[in-house]
Amino acid sequence: MSIKPSVLIVGAGAIGSFYGAILKRAGCAVSVVMRSEYDAVVAKGIRIESSLGDLSYRPDNVYREGDTQDTAPDYLMLCVKVLPGIDRAALIKPWMGEHTRLVLIENGLDIERELADAFPKNPIISCLAFIAASRTGPGEVEHKAYGRLVMGRYPDGIDAHCEELSALFIEGGIKIDLTEQVVSERWRKCLWNTPFNPLSVLANGADTATILDADGGEALIRALMTEVIEAAAADGHAIPMELIDKNINATRKMPPYKNSMALDYLNGRPIELDAVLGNVVAIAHRHGVAVPHLNTVLAALRMRQA
Amino acid sequence: MSIKPSVLIVGAGAIGSFYGAILKRAGCAVSVVMRSEYDAVVAKGIRIESSLGDLSYRPDNVYREGDTQDTAPDYLMLCVKVLPGIDRAALIKPWMGEHTRLVLIENGLDIERELADAFPKNPIISCLAFIAASRTGPGEVEHKAYGRLVMGRYPDGIDAHCEELSALFIEGGIKIDLTEQVVSERWRKCLWNTPFNPLSVLANGADTATILDADGGEALIRALMTEVIEAAAADGHAIPMELIDKNINATRKMPPYKNSMALDYLNGRPIELDAVLGNVVAIAHRHGVAVPHLNTVLAALRMRQA
Repeated sequence: MSIKPSVLIVGAGAIGSFYGAILKRAGCAVSVVMRSEYDAVVAKGIRIESSLGDLSYRPDNVYREGDTQDTAPDYLMLCVKVLPGIDRAALIKPWMGEHTRLVLIENGLDIERELADAFPKNPIISCLAFIAASRTGPGEVEHKAYGRLVMGRYPDGIDAHCEELSALFIEGGIKIDLTEQVVSERWRKCLWNTPFNPLSVLANGADTATILDADGGEALIRALMTEVIEAAAADGHAIPMELIDKNINATRKMPPYKNSMALDYLNGRPIELDAVLGNVVAIAHRHGVAVPHLNTVLAALRMRQA
Repeated sequence: MSIKPSVLIVGAGAIGSFYGAILKRAGCAVSVVMRSEYDAVVAKGIRIESSLGDLSYRPDNVYREGDTQDTAPDYLMLCVKVLPGIDRAALIKPWMGEHTRLVLIENGLDIERELADAFPKNPIISCLAFIAASRTGPGEVEHKAYGRLVMGRYPDGIDAHCEELSALFIEGGIKIDLTEQVVSERWRKCLWNTPFNPLSVLANGADTATILDADGGEALIRALMTEVIEAAAADGHAIPMELIDKNINATRKMPPYKNSMALDYLNGRPIELDAVLGNVVAIAHRHGVAVPHLNTVLAALRMRQA
């Protein structure tokens, strides 16, 4: 039996806890850094109800911020929200070793750059999670559906680390799509998220059907998606325009639902506005691409936050 | 002593009650059509605290909807909000005589058309009110400041009716600016209202300073104002681009405040979205003028209302 790599999760919310469980099932040593839920997790581990079965586990180590570890992890999995007030590089600095591979399971666009700048020698594996999971209590998670990860080296390519980690996730029971162009994949996910998520917040938590059926609603979604594609193209990532129809048709076929940003807003939690929209607008501006619809949504939300 | 004209007010809220008081001071017979506040106004008249003095008065007649009047008024002053659910033509039809002049003291753009269509033989006097006044209770109004009216015949010109009514308002104690181009004046008022009012609602009731100081806020206001000017130009109403600077500088010099649409929103009252924004966008589309920023604000608010 070969020795499995060690994993440390920073940001063990629903997403981090779930993917930690998968790696635990694959035989990795999985430790976590906790904040407010430290006591609960020390007492009873992480409880996960899932359609895959009971994924509950006791982490190998439960750390608090400020604690020290014996050895740095092989993989540090960062799953915190990308918010202006959170310095992610500072958060993981005490835990990163010389050879630690940094795994990002986070939403949005251009969220790797500040970490690549802070840890230029550590490989970065950038992941997009397609999953429905939520926290139900301290150290408690409900995994409702899905779980697939799209994964690639940042800024591009697939290296041996990606392949090793991918094999572990598959062993643990989920589907992995390795990609040579993870940034392009982020743009494709933004094609839906960048219009729908912030707009649902502007509309006070409206669901997908309300957004599409409002007078001028679908037209606005199409205009926003077109701007995302134009910004992506200027940034070197071609997204076919046909994906607009595909996205809208697929959304209309699903039951109306509130996206994660709408739920964050309705529950009084901060929203990942820059990761999902602000960075897209910034990239568009950098390339001189006009994005008036995206701009209006962004500025209106910033007014609301001010 | 000449006999003064008779006036009937439909929509005796803060604005209607105030301008009725001014005409009452000028010696007109002033009657009102009331709904929910009928009993209060029958019992104690209309109470108005004002910097001009006590403007309280007993209307010559207090009608309910469905009542009949002996003779139609010389002037019917319509001061209701312009909202999709309110059929203003139906509301005034029972009270309009063959020679009644229709006076509109209402906000927004292109709000005269449906009344001109419904009453093609009655002269229409279109007015813009620059006033700070609010209802404080049933039949009770506080007039805080200003009161000037910009007034002209719809669609353009100044006729003898305008001159007569203007003289009465001046006699009653307020300032009147007669204009040959009242629709152009509506566009100029929209230059401020169309960007600031709906945006303040999207930003959950933000005040002027919050809107202008937010990251990207002033730029968005400027983009929206530019689109209003382009739509106005296509519609035959030239507004100089310099007015954008003027409006923004004037707004920055005033203490931060919440505009009337923001207050309506915060108090759970319906907002005049079509009159202030929807009609501007519709006119722009009719002329093939692209207004992406205005469009985004409009569609987002319609989603919220849906």
